[in-house]
Amino acid sequence: MAKKIITISREFGSGGRFIGEEVAKKLGMAYYDKNVITEIAEKSGLSPEYIQENAELSPKKGLFAYALAGRDITGKSVEDIVYEAQRKVILELVEKEPCVIIGRNADFILKDRDDVLNVFIHGNMPEKMQRISCLYNVSGQEAVKMMADTDKRRLANYNFYTEQKWGKASNYTLCLNSSELGYDRCEAIIMECVK
Amino acid sequence: MAKKIITISREFGSGGRFIGEEVAKKLGMAYYDKNVITEIAEKSGLSPEYIQENAELSPKKGLFAYALAGRDITGKSVEDIVYEAQRKVILELVEKEPCVIIGRNADFILKDRDDVLNVFIHGNMPEKMQRISCLYNVSGQEAVKMMADTDKRRLANYNFYTEQKWGKASNYTLCLNSSELGYDRCEAIIMECVK
Repeated sequence: MAKKIITISREFGSGGRFIGEEVAKKLGMAYYDKNVITEIAEKSGLSPEYIQENAELSPKKGLFAYALAGRDITGKSVEDIVYEAQRKVILELVEKEPCVIIGRNADFILKDRDDVLNVFIHGNMPEKMQRISCLYNVSGQEAVKMMADTDKRRLANYNFYTEQKWGKASNYTLCLNSSELGYDRCEAIIMECVK
Repeated sequence: MAKKIITISREFGSGGRFIGEEVAKKLGMAYYDKNVITEIAEKSGLSPEYIQENAELSPKKGLFAYALAGRDITGKSVEDIVYEAQRKVILELVEKEPCVIIGRNADFILKDRDDVLNVFIHGNMPEKMQRISCLYNVSGQEAVKMMADTDKRRLANYNFYTEQKWGKASNYTLCLNSSELGYDRCEAIIMECVK
């Protein structure tokens, strides 16, 4: 079946988000990353009404107070509520139009559809370090720490919510090492796979 | 750097060996799978002299007796000797001409070279089951058992000798789901990556 949705999971610094954005532009598809999905979720799913309904928490206290309070009587943490809201946003977005979705465990959230191309982008340490150093204007050492922290968080979040292993080849249709293949070739391969 | 060696690791039933053989034919590259490598190793590396030298075991007893005897005073098992012999064969073969190597942990054995494209091929259960049923003339249930047994052995061998995780995307340049992409497209992508 033809693929009309592309999900991109990626190691920090591998250029996965950039590659996804370029593919979306070239194929004329909508593009959704963390910022867009969070914004939509905040406008809808994370409305005070939604939080109150799901968490039995006074919306006046806000999310920060809620986070400090830990899990409430429904057993849901603030992460669970955010995750559920983002999940709903993703399920709605893909109904609208062909799109590229970066991160947010979208590969797992959309696993029951057969029109999704799931891509994982990773890279080699020197290239990732250099990219992060330039993008965030930090030293090599700081870049390595940012990589370790971010990927650790992505892995923990993915493994918790999906009960799969982040970065395991069999979760994805296509996995690409962007340092060895180059960004242009990664884009070309992804586009070849949605033809 | 241009890639002149292709290693293919694969789940049993994913068609990885077939895809590798087709790519080798189309690109005019030499093709080496388990049978070829074992044959060469037996003719050279696994000669009675080699075994005696490495394992302090009378070659007259043969490998089977050796296997029963377990590890010898050098701490080497029969698997270690076979592995070492195959490793030597692989290191020699890649010096001769461009080639495709199936399995045998070749991705790890060749990790210090930068002219190697490491590919992992996997697939979905229904397609793999059907392929194995047809190829080996067995029931679906038997096919599932064959898959579990073979992949378990591949994983154990790979993880033991490489200290990496078999099937983890970051070990490979390229990972492809052959059930979703189709064999032809997998071949095309691999060929695109060695251009």
